[in-house]
Amino acid sequence: MTQVSILIFDIFGTVVDWHGSIVREVSALYPQVDADAFALAWRGGYQPAMQRVRSGELGWTRIDDLHRMILDQILPRFGLEHLSEVERAHLNRVWHRLDAWPDSVAGLTRLKQRFTISSLSNGNIGLLTNMAKRAGLPWDCVLSAEVFRAYKPDPRTYLGVAEVFDVTPGEVMLVAAHQDDLAAARACGLATAYIERPFEFGQAHPKDVSPDAANTWHARDLQHLADQLGC
Amino acid sequence: MTQVSILIFDIFGTVVDWHGSIVREVSALYPQVDADAFALAWRGGYQPAMQRVRSGELGWTRIDDLHRMILDQILPRFGLEHLSEVERAHLNRVWHRLDAWPDSVAGLTRLKQRFTISSLSNGNIGLLTNMAKRAGLPWDCVLSAEVFRAYKPDPRTYLGVAEVFDVTPGEVMLVAAHQDDLAAARACGLATAYIERPFEFGQAHPKDVSPDAANTWHARDLQHLADQLGC
Repeated sequence: MTQVSILIFDIFGTVVDWHGSIVREVSALYPQVDADAFALAWRGGYQPAMQRVRSGELGWTRIDDLHRMILDQILPRFGLEHLSEVERAHLNRVWHRLDAWPDSVAGLTRLKQRFTISSLSNGNIGLLTNMAKRAGLPWDCVLSAEVFRAYKPDPRTYLGVAEVFDVTPGEVMLVAAHQDDLAAARACGLATAYIERPFEFGQAHPKDVSPDAANTWHARDLQHLADQLGC
Repeated sequence: MTQVSILIFDIFGTVVDWHGSIVREVSALYPQVDADAFALAWRGGYQPAMQRVRSGELGWTRIDDLHRMILDQILPRFGLEHLSEVERAHLNRVWHRLDAWPDSVAGLTRLKQRFTISSLSNGNIGLLTNMAKRAGLPWDCVLSAEVFRAYKPDPRTYLGVAEVFDVTPGEVMLVAAHQDDLAAARACGLATAYIERPFEFGQAHPKDVSPDAANTWHARDLQHLADQLGC
């Protein structure tokens, strides 16, 4: 068995709670809005927007700019079409202010003692850096789709990490709460760890967190992963 | 005056002591070699090697690979042409094991409280990450020429940082022990801070550390910079 030395982490949903954080900010700013539906609509535009870049319809675009395009689209649906440029820009930066899940900082801190830990997110570097600084995420390195100019699940992202650290793909493990991300990483030869985040989409929308035997590890949260890896 | 929010740091010579670290390792491994001359010869090949990439003679090449090309060239000059592949690979990784100057970790830790701090080095991401982990450099982000596919002093590196963080160039300050690096950053609109490292090339080869009034700040070391910036 190859020895894993590099852990890379999906961010939105795996390390931070995007749904709860957006609900928190939107509820505070615009109490008349259905914040749960707003968060789901915003996130719902994410994969289709990236698909426009993957297909070549749009050139390379950072997630900050995709988030803003989706935001502008959904505001009228929630009666917020009157928001000014300053208000839209501020709201769009909520993705830089997402809260970590309660176990994330302690879990990452333990894992960092034995492994090199890095993000591997479709979020852009500036977003990930601002988020980490605010939430106290102790990355050794901030890697993003922006470095590789390709979004996950493009193999260039997973294999790009192995190249950056000059290791074989089997020495890298992706940690994520999404089976499709993990499957794509596994197809590139990476080890994989699934993290249950049953309430990623909010308490009202629990998701299936059944194990997939194809993953190397299955953990309730990042503390539980650190337990299993002996950190 | 624009408010600086992002500090980016040159690494080799500014944050870490490449000369002293190479002398330390080479003296221990090969006591018969003039380690001071060896360190200077290795580093001396650095700018010419990058120039071969800038000129297009070589395609994009990471510093790890340039360091190895230079190493292979200089070994015979020091009677080390018999080194095996494993020994050469190990020695080449000394650049991942450079020691920080005594003030670096404490100075960066103070500066990090008020600024976002990132490397901006021609060294590759893997090298910078391994170095930071070993030396305890508390970066918020690890930026490298590798992200921008251009070496300093190419404007794409300095302006690329402003773009990554979605700020104006004037909100970024380069911290470096080399006036040419600082001058190139200034030409792009960045603020600049010069750090005296009189013994970058060893105690036997003190360098001129005179102030240049064009820099925004001039500091003895990173603790002194933190003092001046009120951190």
